[in-house]
Amino acid sequence: MDTDLYATINQMAQQLQTWRRDFHQYAESGWLEFRTATLVAEELHQLGYQLQLGKEVIKADARMGLPSPAELEKQEKRAIEQGALTQWLGHFSGGFTGIVATLDTERPGPTLAFRVDMDALDLNEDLSCQHRPYNEGFASCNSHMMHACGHDGHTAIGLGLAHVLKQYESKLSGRIKIIFQPAEEGTRGAKSMMEAGVVDDVDFFVAIHLGTGVPQGEVVCGSRNFLATTKFDVTYQGVAAHSGAKPEDGKNALLAAAHATLGLYGIPRHSEGSSRINVGVLQAGIGRNVIPDSALLKVETRGETNEINEFIYQKALNIVEGAAKMQDVSVDIKLMGAAQSSHPSPQWVDFICDLAQAHLPEFTSVVKDRSQAAGSEDATYFMERVKQLGGQATYMIFGTQLSAGHHNERFDFDEQVMTTAVKTLSTIALHLPEFGAQNG
Amino acid sequence: MDTDLYATINQMAQQLQTWRRDFHQYAESGWLEFRTATLVAEELHQLGYQLQLGKEVIKADARMGLPSPAELEKQEKRAIEQGALTQWLGHFSGGFTGIVATLDTERPGPTLAFRVDMDALDLNEDLSCQHRPYNEGFASCNSHMMHACGHDGHTAIGLGLAHVLKQYESKLSGRIKIIFQPAEEGTRGAKSMMEAGVVDDVDFFVAIHLGTGVPQGEVVCGSRNFLATTKFDVTYQGVAAHSGAKPEDGKNALLAAAHATLGLYGIPRHSEGSSRINVGVLQAGIGRNVIPDSALLKVETRGETNEINEFIYQKALNIVEGAAKMQDVSVDIKLMGAAQSSHPSPQWVDFICDLAQAHLPEFTSVVKDRSQAAGSEDATYFMERVKQLGGQATYMIFGTQLSAGHHNERFDFDEQVMTTAVKTLSTIALHLPEFGAQNG
Amino acid sequence: MDTDLYATINQMAQQLQTWRRDFHQYAESGWLEFRTATLVAEELHQLGYQLQLGKEVIKADARMGLPSPAELEKQEKRAIEQGALTQWLGHFSGGFTGIVATLDTERPGPTLAFRVDMDALDLNEDLSCQHRPYNEGFASCNSHMMHACGHDGHTAIGLGLAHVLKQYESKLSGRIKIIFQPAEEGTRGAKSMMEAGVVDDVDFFVAIHLGTGVPQGEVVCGSRNFLATTKFDVTYQGVAAHSGAKPEDGKNALLAAAHATLGLYGIPRHSEGSSRINVGVLQAGIGRNVIPDSALLKVETRGETNEINEFIYQKALNIVEGAAKMQDVSVDIKLMGAAQSSHPSPQWVDFICDLAQAHLPEFTSVVKDRSQAAGSEDATYFMERVKQLGGQATYMIFGTQLSAGHHNERFDFDEQVMTTAVKTLSTIALHLPEFGAQNG
Amino acid sequence: MDTDLYATINQMAQQLQTWRRDFHQYAESGWLEFRTATLVAEELHQLGYQLQLGKEVIKADARMGLPSPAELEKQEKRAIEQGALTQWLGHFSGGFTGIVATLDTERPGPTLAFRVDMDALDLNEDLSCQHRPYNEGFASCNSHMMHACGHDGHTAIGLGLAHVLKQYESKLSGRIKIIFQPAEEGTRGAKSMMEAGVVDDVDFFVAIHLGTGVPQGEVVCGSRNFLATTKFDVTYQGVAAHSGAKPEDGKNALLAAAHATLGLYGIPRHSEGSSRINVGVLQAGIGRNVIPDSALLKVETRGETNEINEFIYQKALNIVEGAAKMQDVSVDIKLMGAAQSSHPSPQWVDFICDLAQAHLPEFTSVVKDRSQAAGSEDATYFMERVKQLGGQATYMIFGTQLSAGHHNERFDFDEQVMTTAVKTLSTIALHLPEFGAQNG
Repeated sequence: MDTDLYATINQMAQQLQTWRRDFHQYAESGWLEFRTATLVAEELHQLGYQLQLGKEVIKADARMGLPSPAELEKQEKRAIEQGALTQWLGHFSGGFTGIVATLDTERPGPTLAFRVDMDALDLNEDLSCQHRPYNEGFASCNSHMMHACGHDGHTAIGLGLAHVLKQYESKLSGRIKIIFQPAEEGTRGAKSMMEAGVVDDVDFFVAIHLGTGVPQGEVVCGSRNFLATTKFDVTYQGVAAHSGAKPEDGKNALLAAAHATLGLYGIPRHSEGSSRINVGVLQAGIGRNVIPDSALLKVETRGETNEINEFIYQKALNIVEGAAKMQDVSVDIKLMGAAQSSHPSPQWVDFICDLAQAHLPEFTSVVKDRSQAAGSEDATYFMERVKQLGGQATYMIFGTQLSAGHHNERFDFDEQVMTTAVKTLSTIALHLPEFGAQNG
Repeated sequence: MDTDLYATINQMAQQLQTWRRDFHQYAESGWLEFRTATLVAEELHQLGYQLQLGKEVIKADARMGLPSPAELEKQEKRAIEQGALTQWLGHFSGGFTGIVATLDTERPGPTLAFRVDMDALDLNEDLSCQHRPYNEGFASCNSHMMHACGHDGHTAIGLGLAHVLKQYESKLSGRIKIIFQPAEEGTRGAKSMMEAGVVDDVDFFVAIHLGTGVPQGEVVCGSRNFLATTKFDVTYQGVAAHSGAKPEDGKNALLAAAHATLGLYGIPRHSEGSSRINVGVLQAGIGRNVIPDSALLKVETRGETNEINEFIYQKALNIVEGAAKMQDVSVDIKLMGAAQSSHPSPQWVDFICDLAQAHLPEFTSVVKDRSQAAGSEDATYFMERVKQLGGQATYMIFGTQLSAGHHNERFDFDEQVMTTAVKTLSTIALHLPEFGAQNG
Repeated sequence: MDTDLYATINQMAQQLQTWRRDFHQYAESGWLEFRTATLVAEELHQLGYQLQLGKEVIKADARMGLPSPAELEKQEKRAIEQGALTQWLGHFSGGFTGIVATLDTERPGPTLAFRVDMDALDLNEDLSCQHRPYNEGFASCNSHMMHACGHDGHTAIGLGLAHVLKQYESKLSGRIKIIFQPAEEGTRGAKSMMEAGVVDDVDFFVAIHLGTGVPQGEVVCGSRNFLATTKFDVTYQGVAAHSGAKPEDGKNALLAAAHATLGLYGIPRHSEGSSRINVGVLQAGIGRNVIPDSALLKVETRGETNEINEFIYQKALNIVEGAAKMQDVSVDIKLMGAAQSSHPSPQWVDFICDLAQAHLPEFTSVVKDRSQAAGSEDATYFMERVKQLGGQATYMIFGTQLSAGHHNERFDFDEQVMTTAVKTLSTIALHLPEFGAQNG
Repeated sequence: MDTDLYATINQMAQQLQTWRRDFHQYAESGWLEFRTATLVAEELHQLGYQLQLGKEVIKADARMGLPSPAELEKQEKRAIEQGALTQWLGHFSGGFTGIVATLDTERPGPTLAFRVDMDALDLNEDLSCQHRPYNEGFASCNSHMMHACGHDGHTAIGLGLAHVLKQYESKLSGRIKIIFQPAEEGTRGAKSMMEAGVVDDVDFFVAIHLGTGVPQGEVVCGSRNFLATTKFDVTYQGVAAHSGAKPEDGKNALLAAAHATLGLYGIPRHSEGSSRINVGVLQAGIGRNVIPDSALLKVETRGETNEINEFIYQKALNIVEGAAKMQDVSVDIKLMGAAQSSHPSPQWVDFICDLAQAHLPEFTSVVKDRSQAAGSEDATYFMERVKQLGGQATYMIFGTQLSAGHHNERFDFDEQVMTTAVKTLSTIALHLPEFGAQNG
C-alpha cells in the first residue's frame, strides 16, 4: 500500500504548493478567514465530505479576541473582492470561519480527527527580492496580514489529506474528521470549536505544525512543550483634564496602567513550575497637555500547568483592579485568548513514532519530544477534551527549513514538508486499526 | 481720529470674517502653515509691507517639535492642492512658516511690534449641525487639523491691523512690525523667531489672544498668568524577545516607561510656587507576546517661574535616564517645545488700560489681569527678550463668547471680537507717542 | 502702667529661665508630659487659678497619635522618678496631659485665651560642649525626647504670664484662660481640647510661637502661613513565605507599600494652591529570605486650604487601599494627627500690631505676617473654632536668635525672648478693652 | 566491625544530647559562635586532632554579612560570661569562628572531609511549655538567637564523629578533616573557608543536614536541590528636608527604594530554569515630616544554575543603580552572602547509597534525591571546589521528626537522628577504601 500511496501523494506536490501559495497571497487574520474558508469548503464539498460550517462548529460566545463588527464587515467585503465564494460565505459571516469535514466510511471503527489552522498573523510581509514569496509573486496582498507561521501550509496539508483519504476510502474504517480551525494566533479559536462539541466523538486526535525550529527530516510525534496561557486586554477609563490649568480634575488612566504594569511584572514565581507574564502593549493618552483618560494594556499570563497559569492570572486580576482603585478609574478586562497545557497520550505517541520509523524513510529522525522554547497552542483544548472523554491525543511537528523564524516578516518554509506531512497523516489513518491490536 | 478710524474698521468686519473662515477651513497645524503663510505674505506684499520670510525670521535649529521630512513634504503638496501661492511657497518650504511684516514710517520713533500666531491644533473638527463652522460650510477640510484655539482669528486680526495701519501710515511714526508666528501650539515656534532676532529692535511689544474664558466685553491688558514649560519626548529602545520562549532575552522598554512615569509624577512640589508635570501619552510595544522593545512618552513640565520649571525638568531628566538604566535600555530625549514665565511691563499695561478705557467704549470691563487657569504661551520668549533689551512688553486677551472651550472639537467664537481687537491694536499704535510723554 | 508692668516682668527673667531649663532637662514627648503638667498645675493652683485638668479639657477619642498603653504606663513611672507631683498625676494619667487655667475677674468683659504647648520632640539631644543645654547642664535626660522646638519656652511663658496677670488682676476685666496643650508635635493634641469645648466661650484668642526663623527683635502679629495637614499611619498585613521554597504562598506587604509610596507621591498638584505629600517612614519585612508580611508607612498630606488637604487625603486613601488590593493584603489606616489652615482675624491682628508698636519699643520690627516656609500647627483648630463662634483669633511669633533650626538636635534659643513674650501678652490682656472702643 | 562500631555509637547518644542541648541553650548567630567554637576546639584538642583555627581557615575579606565591630566585641564579652574558654578565644576574635580538625592516619589514602555548621538564627525562641527546649530547660538564653535550623545537632554530630574516628583510627587510612563552619545562615561563611583553601586537598567530601522535611528513617545521599544565590544589602543615601517647608530640597532615598523594589520584583523569568528574587526588608526614613534621606533594602537573588542566578543578579544591579539615578541619591551595594548550585558526584552518591543500604538497617528509605522546596546552602562552595580539583562531593540529609518547620520559633527535632548520622558518617570513613575498588 505504502508505495502506491506515497506515489500518489508525491504527484500532489504541485497542487499543495498552488493551494499554499494562494492562501499565502490572500492571507487572512483570525476570524477573518472568509476567502480561505469558502475555498476550503468548496474543495471538500466537491470531494464529497460531509460538512459542518460556521455556527455548527463554533460556539459564538466562546470566541475570544473577535475583531469589531465594522472590521468583520469590511473584511468580508475585501474577501468577496478577492474571490471568496459567495455560495459559502453566509456560513462564515460575522466571524464563524470554522469547518469540520467528515468522511464516514460506514464501517465500524473509531473516530480519528486531524486539526489544521487557517489564520495569518497581523504583520506586514517583507517586500524585498530576497524574500521568496515576494520574488515569486505570492506575497500577501493584504495589509497587516501575513502567513508568517505556516498556517497556509497547514490548510494545504488539510486539503491534500482530504484528497488522499477520499481516494483510499475503501481501505479505511470508522470515521475521519478534518478540522479547519480559525484564529489560532492569539489562541482564540479552538476553545469555541471545542465547546461546540466537535471533538466529543473523537477517539484519536492529531494536531500538527510545521517548522518551529525542528530540523528538516525530523518529526516530533508528541510535543508536550506548551504553556497554558490567558490573554486579556485591560482598558482603564478615567477623566481628562488640562494638565496645566486643572490637574486636580483628572483621573489618570495612564498612571493606573503604569502601576498595573509594574505590579504585573512583579507577580511572584511559582515553585512548582515555569510561569510567564507580559504586558506586550501599552497605549495611553491623547496629548501631551492632557491628563490621560484612557489606557489599553495587552497582557498575557502563562504557566507550565493550568494551575500555575491560573495562579498568575488571578494575581494579575487583583493587580489590574487594585491599580484602578489607586487612581479612581474604571477598568474593563476582556478575555482575548486562552490555551491549556496538555501532555500527549503516551501510547498514541509511541504508536505514531513506530509508524513513522517503519513506513517513512524520509525521516532521518523520529522523536517523541524535543526540548525547546515554550510557546502556547490552543489545540490543547481539543487534546484535553479528547483525553477527558477517554480518547488519545497528540501534537505533531514536521521539521522543515525556515528562511526566518516564525512571526518574522521574512518567514518562509520548504514546501516539500507538506508532502511529507500528508504522507504521515495518511499513514496514521490507514494504519489506525493496528493501534487497537497493539494496545488492546 | 477715533471716529473715523473705528468706522473704517467696522467696515472691515466682513473681510475679517472671510479671512478667518478661509483659514479655518484650510486649518494647518504647526510648521505646516504653508497655504496660510503664502496667503498672508501675498496680502502684506500687496499692501506694501517690507517682508522677511522663512529662514530670515526662523532659526532652523531652534525649531522644536518639527514634523518629519516626509510629513513636511506631504503637507506642502496638500497646501498646493488647496491653493497655496507657489510664488511664496519656497520661502516656507521645509517648515519655515514665519513672516515678519514691517511698516517703516521713516519718521523718528520707537519700534512697536504685534505678534499673532497662525497654527491649528491636531484635532478632528466636529461635523455636526450644531457646530457653526460645519453648518455654515467652513469646517476644516484637513483631517486631524482644526482651528480650535482661535489662531485663525488672530491671523485675520493681523491682516486687518496691517490694512488699517497702512491706511493711517501718515499718522504713525517709528516702525511697526507684525509678526506672524507658526507653531504656537505645543509652544514650539516663538523661540526660533526670537533667536532669529525678530524682536531685538523692538521697544514696545504686544501679543494677543482671544477668548480663554475672558467674558465678552472685557479686555485683559497685561495677562501674567503663564507657566514656564518644557515639552519633550522620551523614547526608550530595548530589545524584543518572545515573552513565552525567551523572556530573559528582552530589554523591556515599556517597563522603563512605566518606571519613568511613576517617577515623573513623583517629582516633589516646590515651596516657592506652582509646578506641573504630565505624561500625556505613552505608547509602547507591538504585540501581546513580545517583550516590548520601544516606548514613547510625551512629557511636559511647568513652573510658576523659569527656575521652578527648570527644577522640575532637571528632576525629570534624572528620572528618565535612571529608568533607562534600570531596564538597561537606551533613551533619547527630544525637546519638543518650551515657553517661559513672563510678567508684563507695568507701565505699558497701565498705558494700554488707560487707552482702552478712554477710547473704546465697547469694553464693559478693562482689567490688568484676571485670575484664571494656568497655561503656557511661547510669546513669553518675545516678551522676555524685549524686556531684557530695555523694552516694554505685554500680553492682551480679548474676551468673546465661545461655543465650547479651547481645544474642544466644537470650539468657535463670536467673530465680532476681531473688529474689537483691530480697533484696540490700531489705537495703541496711533497713541503710542503719548506713552513717552506720560512715562518720560 | 507700662513702666511698672515691664519692670515687674524684667525681674521675672531668672524665674522664666529656671522654669524653661527645668522643662528642657526633663523633656517629655506628646501625651507623656506627666511631670511637666503636674508642675504647671501646682504653680497655677498656688497662684489661685481655677483649673480644669485632664479629661475635663481633653476629649479622649479625639486624641491622635497616642502612645501605646505600655508606653504611657512606663513614662508615667519615669515621670514620678523625675519628680512629677503625684497629687496631680491622676488627672493626667493615661495621656490626658492638658490644663486650662482660668482667671475670672468677675468684672464684665470678654473672654481672652492664650495657648501654649508643652511637648518635646522624639529626638536625642546633642551632647557636645558647643551645645549650651549640655554645657550648662540642662540637656534632656530622657532618651529620644528633646525640646528642639521651644515648647519648653512656651510653657515658661505661660507660667510667667499667669503670674503677671494675677498680679495685675485688678486692672483686668472679663475672663482670661491660659491653655497648656499637650502633643502639638505631629499636630495631635489641639483637636481633642477644641472638641472638649475649651475655646467655645472665647472671644479673643492668641496662640504663640518663638523662633521659626523670625529675626530677633521682630514680632509677627498674625501669621497665616499654616498648611492644613492630615497625618496617618498605614499598616499592610500579608502572608509570609519562604522566598526560595514557596514564593507563591506569600502575600507581599512590602510590595504593597512600595506601590502605595509611588502612588502617593504621584498625587496631582492642585491648581488652587499649595499641597504636599510625604511618606516619611517605611518599615517592612523581617528577613532577607522571607516574603515580607507586614509594612508600616508614616504618611502626611498638606494643603494651603482645608479643601486642598482633603483633596490630597482622599486621593491618598484610594491609593493606599488600591495598593492593598493589588497585592491582596489587608490594610489598616490610622489617623495620627491633623491641623487646619486658618487665617488670623484682620482687625485683631491690626489691634495687636498697633499695641506692639505703641508699647513695646524693644521690637525693631512689627509685622502682620512674614513669607516663610510652610509648616502646620494645630492651634488652627482653636482659631477656626473661635472664629466660627464669632470671636477673633490670631497666631503670634516672637523672633529670637536660634543656635540651630527647629527640630535640630542642637536647637537652642535666646531666653530673653520669653520676657518679651510675657510683656506682649500681658499688654494685650491689659489693653483689650481698647479693642472694642476702636472696632465697635 | 559494624556491630562493635554501632554499639559504641549507641552508647554515645547521651553525650550527643548533652552537647546539642548546651549549644542550643547558648545559641550564637553567624560569626558570633565564640563560645561554641572554643568548646569545640577544646574537645577536639583533647582528642588529639590537629587543629587549624580562625584566620588559618577563614579568609578575612571573603567573609560576608559580618556583624559590626561593636557587635562582635559585645558578643565576645557575652560569650566569656557564658563560659567561652578564653585560652581558645583569641583565635576566633573578630569574627573568625571556624575550625578544621584533621586526623592524619599517616597511612596512604585519600583525604576525606566532613562539614558541619555551628551558627544559630536571628530569632527569638518560643518560651511556652509545649516547646520542649523551654520545657526541659535548654531554650536559648540569648535574645534574638535560636538554633531553629538544627546546626546545634550538626555540631554535636561533628564532635561525636570525631570521637568515633579517633577510637577507630587504626582501621582508617589517609586523612580525615572535620570542618566546623560558621555563618551558614545567610550563606555567609563557606566561601571564606573555601578561599582559605580548606578543601583544596580533599578527595571526598560530605556535607550534612538533618530534617528539611525528609521523613524519619530516610536518608538522602545526594541532595541536588540547591539554588545558587546572592544576598546583598542596598543602602540609598539622599538628603533630608522638611516635607512641608522645603520639599524641593530633599533627595528621597525611600522613593529610590520603592522604585528599586518594584524593579527588582519585575526582573524577568529565565526560560532555562527557576529563579527567585526577594526584597525581604525595607527600612527607610526617620520621621513623618522629613523627606527620607536613607533607605536600606535586604535583597536576595536565586537561580537554578549559577548562570541564572548571575543573570538575575546583574539585572538587579542595573535596577538598584538606576533607581539611585532616578532620585539623584547615592547607593551602596554590599555583598552579604552567596551560595552556588551544585550537583553531587554520581558515583560518590551511588557508593554512599549502597553503604547505607548494606550497613544501616535503621534506614527504612535510602534515596539519591528528593523533590522538595528549593533553598540555598553554601556548602556548595566546598562541593564545587572539590569537584573542580578532581574530587567527589555530596550533600546528605538525615530525616527526622520535626516539631515545627525550620526557621520557626518552635523548631525542635528527634535527637536520635544524631546517633544515626554519626553511624552513617563513620561507616563512610571506614568503608572508603572500597570506593576505589569499585570505581577504579
